[in-house]
This record gives sequence, C-alpha cells and structure tokens, in this order.
Amino acid sequence: MISDPRREMNYRVTLAYDGTGYLGWQMQAGGRTIQGELEAALARLNGAPVVAHGAGRTDAGVHALGQVVSFRLARRWEGMALRRALNGNLPPEIRVLEAMPADDEFHARFSARGKVYRYEIDTNQVADPLRARYAWHYPYELDLARLAAEGRALLGTHDFSAFTVAGGETRTRVRTLTEARAEREGGLVRLWFAGDGFLKYMVRTMVAAIVESSRGRLKVGSVEALLSGRDRAAGGTPAPAKGLTLIKVEY
Amino acid sequence: MISDPRREMNYRVTLAYDGTGYLGWQMQAGGRTIQGELEAALARLNGAPVVAHGAGRTDAGVHALGQVVSFRLARRWEGMALRRALNGNLPPEIRVLEAMPADDEFHARFSARGKVYRYEIDTNQVADPLRARYAWHYPYELDLARLAAEGRALLGTHDFSAFTVAGGETRTRVRTLTEARAEREGGLVRLWFAGDGFLKYMVRTMVAAIVESSRGRLKVGSVEALLSGRDRAAGGTPAPAKGLTLIKVEY
Repeated sequence: MISDPRREMNYRVTLAYDGTGYLGWQMQAGGRTIQGELEAALARLNGAPVVAHGAGRTDAGVHALGQVVSFRLARRWEGMALRRALNGNLPPEIRVLEAMPADDEFHARFSARGKVYRYEIDTNQVADPLRARYAWHYPYELDLARLAAEGRALLGTHDFSAFTVAGGETRTRVRTLTEARAEREGGLVRLWFAGDGFLKYMVRTMVAAIVESSRGRLKVGSVEALLSGRDRAAGGTPAPAKGLTLIKVEY
Repeated sequence: MISDPRREMNYRVTLAYDGTGYLGWQMQAGGRTIQGELEAALARLNGAPVVAHGAGRTDAGVHALGQVVSFRLARRWEGMALRRALNGNLPPEIRVLEAMPADDEFHARFSARGKVYRYEIDTNQVADPLRARYAWHYPYELDLARLAAEGRALLGTHDFSAFTVAGGETRTRVRTLTEARAEREGGLVRLWFAGDGFLKYMVRTMVAAIVESSRGRLKVGSVEALLSGRDRAAGGTPAPAKGLTLIKVEY
C-alpha cells in the first residue's frame, strides 16, 4: 500500500521502557532497539513502513518514563484505540502511556523545548537486587550538600564540551541547564537534571564528575573547572547507563 | 571432608533477592531456588554440604529484602569475610546483606517471632515497565480508606483458613496479624502486613480479597466474613507472586 503523505495524520505518543537488553532508542544493525520495536508495531498497524521520531535518543541500557515520539499514519486513529493497538503489538518492557493526534507540524525532537532526566545511585554497601536494573551501585558515602553544590555549579548556559564525546552530530555544544538537584531516600540517591537539551553522554558524565567530587576524590569546585576547561574527555568515564531514566519532554 | 557437628559454628545471614525466575526459597527438582543457590555457594566455602534454614519459605517469584537464614559451617568466619565470600559465589540477583556468627541454638525459622511483608500494586492504566517485575498491575481505582478498613478487619488472632490452601504442613491455622496498612505513592499502592507468622499464600490471598473489596466488587465487610467463614478456597485466587516482598524477620 502506498500512502499519500498529504493525507497522512500526525501522532504523538508518550513511551515508558525498561532499556535493559536494548541497544538504545535509535535503530541500528545487530540488536533490538526501542525505535525498531516501535516502528515494527506501527508498520503492522499501518500496513506500510512508518518512521518514528524520538525526542531523546537514549543510549543502550537507558530507561524512559516519558519519552515522546511522533510519526505519521495513513488512517485516523482515536488516541485510546491507538494506545491499545500499539501495546498489543509491543513487548511488555515497552509501553505506550498516551497516544493522541498531533498538529501537522509537531515533531517530537525538533519541537522539544526541554527535557528532564533522573539518575539513581544505590549507595548501600551491598547492591539492592530490586534496584540493580535501574540504579548504579556506588557503595560509598555521598555528601548530599556537596552533590547539590557541584550540581548548581553547572546551572546556566555553557559550552558543555567537557561533558560529552568527540564527534557527535550537533552544531553547537552550548546548552542551558535549568535544574540540578539531589535527594536521598534511604541508601538511594537520586539526581535530577532539567535543561533545554543534552549532549551525548552529558547527564552520565556530569553524574560521574559530581559523584567523584562528592566522595571527596576531586577538589571542591573541580566540576566547575571541568566545565570551563571545555576539554572533551576531561569529564572522564560516564556513569553507567542503567541508572539513567528520561522522565519528561517539555514542549 | 567429614566435619564434626560438635565443632561446627552456627551463622545467621540476611538475604535480599529478586525472585523473578526462581522457583522460590525451597529446594526442589527441576529449577533454580534461592536455597539451592545459597547451599551451593556455602558448600563451596565449607568443602562439604551445608543445609540452610530460611525463616520464610517464599513462593516462586516472591522477592526478599530481609530474608534470614541460618546454617552451620566447619570453620570460624568473621562476618564481613563470610558476606564477601558468599556474594562472590552467588548470582547477582541474590545478595547477602549481613552475615554474623549466631548463638548455637539460633534457628532462622524456629526462632522467628514475627515477619513483615510488603505487597506492591501498580494501579496505573498502563503498566509501568520499571515496576513490572515487582508490582501487580491492577489498573483500577482503589479506595485507600477502604483498603485500610478491610485490612484492619483482619487484625488480631484468628484462624486464617480462608486465606490459605488445603494441605499445608502446619498443625494450626491460627495466626496473629499485628499490622495491615495501605499507602499510596502516585499510581503505586503498597500494602504492609506484620504478624507472628503467615500461612502458605496467606498474604497474597488477603491482598486479593482486600483489593477486590476496595474496587467495589465485594461488599463492605466481606473480607471479615471470609475470615470468620474459615472456608479454605473461599478467599479465592491469590494475588500474583511478583508483587510480594519479605521485608523483615523479627526475633
């Protein structure tokens, strides 16, 4: 079936997924991806291939509770019916939370104005097996006040080159971080980041630097020094993917 | 090596485990069990078979954050060294949180005075994939006040025959429930139960009855009526194993 793009309808869905065992959002050869599973489910509904645009290109092993995706379908779907049909065609670790028709010009990635990420750290001496899929096990005392202070040093509009990798597709590495916050619940530490956009590995590299500093292995102010150095790779190894969850996309 | 039981030392460990993919605590033919994995790890350390006694014989798929186990070893181990050695020999989904020498007469099951269980219910319309291994997906509105009221009706010392299965190894089905409490966090409802002991399927059968009642499918007071009827099987199908976690054993 060849669909007439002039008559296609635009849709927007909110996705949650357990990224364990997936190669990330973006379709690629050699393994399962979230985009790949979603496009396969959409193609079954549509009777023709569908391209799905995700707001955040989450890396392998990263989770989502509020990924947003846009795509076009040949026929008109009511939101609840589309959600039900997609969930019936997706593996249980990928769930459509919401589905709705969208304005014709809506694009999940290009229309996004901001994103919120959460990073979870299990600081218990022995890893909690019920958190093991979703938290980085880092069995050291973390100073919450210092986590918060180092996070605050990154707030604002900066060139975040120190917190990404070489290459990458972006024209500029300037981003605005609007929130960096830490909270503790028992042995679990949660870091929250909000901003207008994030470079590849940016959250995980910021987490690693903030955490190393809060454990006392870097000097106070060292995270800020990394930032102003703009030296890619200086930020060091990103924290593990499994602790990261894309919580929300703002439009 | 034949160890002299008169010279063996008694130990007590606290275990956490993700019960997904296990046939429960108790050793049996045809699949992996928590006891089986632990006894295999203990035998490697001990150079001879070891029998591990668990406080709670958790069913297939049930989790633990505070299971307690006792066993005897031929040699003397310092607690931290024993914990480290066991964690090095156990799969990552089973973790020893604490290990220590115990009085000679300590027995994890017979010395236990009480247990605390938690049951998690995901009431979101679409299942949260990050909760899917640890919560029962029950996508209906639950009235928290009614959950609490039905739970309270079960408090005290009763014959809990209505909330277990026929057969079973126990001489009496009288148990004392000291706590039954409900809390909500977003779409997640947690039920907590504490008591001197629990019959097979007792928590999961109480959860099913309380939840059905709170959804309005049973009359107010029906949970209490089930209890006083003492009719095994009247309690209905137990709630799914994956929502249940053994939190703590009291001595």
